[in-house]
Amino acid sequence: MPEPDYDVLGIGNAIVDIMARAEDDFLVREGLNKSTMHLIDAERADGLYDAMGPAIEASGGSAGNTVAGIASLGGRAAFIGKVANDAFGDLYRHDMRASGVHFATPPLRDGAPTARSMILITPDGERTMNTYLGACRLLGPGDIDEAVVGAAAITYLEGYLWDPPEAKEAFRRAADIAHAAGRKVSLTLSDPFCVDRFRGEFLDLIRSRTVDILFANDTELRSLYETASREAAVAALREDCQLAAVTIGAEGALVVRPDGVWPTPATPVDSVVDLTGAGDLFAAGFLHGLARGMALGDAARLGTIAAAEVIGHIGPRPATSLRDVARQAGFAL
Amino acid sequence: MPEPDYDVLGIGNAIVDIMARAEDDFLVREGLNKSTMHLIDAERADGLYDAMGPAIEASGGSAGNTVAGIASLGGRAAFIGKVANDAFGDLYRHDMRASGVHFATPPLRDGAPTARSMILITPDGERTMNTYLGACRLLGPGDIDEAVVGAAAITYLEGYLWDPPEAKEAFRRAADIAHAAGRKVSLTLSDPFCVDRFRGEFLDLIRSRTVDILFANDTELRSLYETASREAAVAALREDCQLAAVTIGAEGALVVRPDGVWPTPATPVDSVVDLTGAGDLFAAGFLHGLARGMALGDAARLGTIAAAEVIGHIGPRPATSLRDVARQAGFAL
Repeated sequence: MPEPDYDVLGIGNAIVDIMARAEDDFLVREGLNKSTMHLIDAERADGLYDAMGPAIEASGGSAGNTVAGIASLGGRAAFIGKVANDAFGDLYRHDMRASGVHFATPPLRDGAPTARSMILITPDGERTMNTYLGACRLLGPGDIDEAVVGAAAITYLEGYLWDPPEAKEAFRRAADIAHAAGRKVSLTLSDPFCVDRFRGEFLDLIRSRTVDILFANDTELRSLYETASREAAVAALREDCQLAAVTIGAEGALVVRPDGVWPTPATPVDSVVDLTGAGDLFAAGFLHGLARGMALGDAARLGTIAAAEVIGHIGPRPATSLRDVARQAGFAL
Repeated sequence: MPEPDYDVLGIGNAIVDIMARAEDDFLVREGLNKSTMHLIDAERADGLYDAMGPAIEASGGSAGNTVAGIASLGGRAAFIGKVANDAFGDLYRHDMRASGVHFATPPLRDGAPTARSMILITPDGERTMNTYLGACRLLGPGDIDEAVVGAAAITYLEGYLWDPPEAKEAFRRAADIAHAAGRKVSLTLSDPFCVDRFRGEFLDLIRSRTVDILFANDTELRSLYETASREAAVAALREDCQLAAVTIGAEGALVVRPDGVWPTPATPVDSVVDLTGAGDLFAAGFLHGLARGMALGDAARLGTIAAAEVIGHIGPRPATSLRDVARQAGFAL
């Protein structure tokens, strides 16, 4: 098996984030479930945009944020995702490439616009997302570059991809190519409502070993196993999955394997400004650690360090070099 | 004279900011004068965008930032500026209206795109701007809404407007309408290179009393009077202008009138993240104070409070309610 050219390939929805501060009352008035992601159509997107406050725009998307984090840690990263041939698509491609991420998926022409997610950030730093998928719905198996998947140590897939039907096919094709090349496949469950829509299929992906490494937060994991008990959910996960990382907010994360569970505390932060990207950047640190052969505990700690950086400022991607931050914390990157 | 409907009307270039961190070496390599604004064409804009790092986008423009600040202070604000009928234009209009600013200038159709400024933020917090004016070049006298100008206590104009020839006409027309309605006209000199291009015309605007209230920073003022001495420049200004506010960076600001000069210290900040918008927000506080009949010293202090908020985070507009910030500092707003 040749040495991989990439530490991590991310495949996900290519989304521009439109971020605004909002009061909790606004979420109630708009009927939104706090801290989750809502899929919306173009009409609802226009209406919500009109109602929300002044915003700041930045490239986002869960797997996109993760690979930007891998690059910021000094890793070699690639991304597959569908933008349109429009201003937001240009912006997304620029940010990906300027971050040092290989990104060559051809843009959609003459179709839906580039996806956008209206992210409402409440005073407690929680984010509530409203995503119009646009061009992302047209990511298909033909967009999966076999050479890139085969050259990535780990292919990382978003649970969010399970919504657009074409993307589901792309997801399966990528997993097949990766395994045929002797590489690893990783999945994040993404969102509790996403899990609720596709519980059976996600369990099947995990139990069939289509997924080697699972990411979930506490809420998503409990949704997966339909239990209010974290302990019960983790116990079920140990039966189903060879390696998982479960984030539990301010408590940090758990590394879960059939033979045990290892907790890692969160890296302290002065103040939580915006939780957008916290899970994505935890995944970046953990995956980078795995790709570089770190011990699981070190990989998890690198995850919490990357997450701590991104929640200290507005925006879903690192604002400073994560490699520098990690080096200051004693990592030899 | 009827009571004004607006405290401040801003007329300026409607620009979307594309902000990225950059090292000083990058500025040198690209031949950029630090802390100033460069006008660039579409080709140079593309080249610089390709070369710069991952960015965050936000509505900007000097007078646009100022009126967003007025609204954040609880004032009644309006804006006149030219966007195109495109994604960045929609974004700009949204942000203006969502900030509570009246903005009804019709967008340009089938012409140049909405203006963008690539803003490079160096580790010291200084910003170096590279502006492609696009649709802004088409702001003309026909865009000056007579009713809005006549209903604004103060009409505030950017020196930057003196670059596009049509905008210059718009500027003169606005000043004429404002004075005919018994209102005040204010100008910011905007940038030392801008002053260098139009020194004679700016002096004429001031000396002819086309401008009642002048804003400048130390560098711009010294460029205006072609002197290395701040004292000499301020002395010359006292001869030419009935009321001016001169910002001097970390030292704060000077209120300058023929009968005297009053210094106001800067409001301390924990750390300077991004100086973008500092002058614009100082102007917001000072103008809001004037429009509400505050003493000059209080208006200047309100300016330093608004400036301190905006330099504490990335982005050219307030991230929190300036009214709340000012109330905490003892202002009855």
